[in-house]
Amino acid sequence: MSWAFFEEFEAGQTDAFGSHFFARDEVIRFARAYDPQPFHIDEEAGRDSIFGRLAASGWHTAAGMMKCWSAYSFGRRAERQSRGLALPEIGPSPGFEALAWPRPVYPGDTVSYAGEVVSKRPLASRPRWGLVMSRIEGVNQEGVKVLTFESKLMVERRISGQVA
Amino acid sequence: MSWAFFEEFEAGQTDAFGSHFFARDEVIRFARAYDPQPFHIDEEAGRDSIFGRLAASGWHTAAGMMKCWSAYSFGRRAERQSRGLALPEIGPSPGFEALAWPRPVYPGDTVSYAGEVVSKRPLASRPRWGLVMSRIEGVNQEGVKVLTFESKLMVERRISGQVA
Repeated sequence: MSWAFFEEFEAGQTDAFGSHFFARDEVIRFARAYDPQPFHIDEEAGRDSIFGRLAASGWHTAAGMMKCWSAYSFGRRAERQSRGLALPEIGPSPGFEALAWPRPVYPGDTVSYAGEVVSKRPLASRPRWGLVMSRIEGVNQEGVKVLTFESKLMVERRISGQVA
Repeated sequence: MSWAFFEEFEAGQTDAFGSHFFARDEVIRFARAYDPQPFHIDEEAGRDSIFGRLAASGWHTAAGMMKCWSAYSFGRRAERQSRGLALPEIGPSPGFEALAWPRPVYPGDTVSYAGEVVSKRPLASRPRWGLVMSRIEGVNQEGVKVLTFESKLMVERRISGQVA
């Protein structure tokens, strides 16, 4: 799903990115900086809210995914390099669809993130790049989905004649 | 757009949430914690990337929005309370659509966030709540869009007979 050339991606391919433990301190620290709604920073406000407990910011749940994906990508990149393979460039995402948080993340939860390639297509406007569409999920330690979205990722195409 | 009861929202209503300055230190700190791709944490890697410069993580751009929205909501909440009005409960978002980062955010940029109510509907499954659909945008100091998405927000309905 990452650090492969566009041509190497295949629909149905799945990758586990890793997991993130949501420590109470970090949940509150993230929320204080970026999402200081009462139910994200205060136990009592959490209990009185629709969440029933202090809950992590949805943007924290998403950032945890990105952290795992980055680490996973670095690993794949290093592995590829150690095998003497060319490194493709992974570009920015042109956007995500259907970003949802089906259930809250609570302090003490561990969320595991994974992705499945859904489809891919060349980018007409940028011949060097292709688009890879994936379905990304985060599930907690009980297997309950807490984050889902559809990702589009720009991935470099293999240049004709380049030795991989 | 926030801290109003469901019945008070109107399509076309716009709200400016505030702005966030993306200091270089904070850009790198956020990226190190949650999105440590080279072009988000290293000037040289940024120059060599599709961004052309060190660029902020898209999740940081989104988190800046949430920070502004939270502050804006608190202000609206306090204002409402000072006028002796009842406070509705704002619930979690069931999801966002079309999350996109049309242009990068660079250190030194100031991003201003705003939203426009697109539509609303009662929630059949939860009679106490309604859904408010909005279009959210972030623009930099040159008026260039750097973040766009469509938001759905759960907002409490006014209970029949409650004095506002």
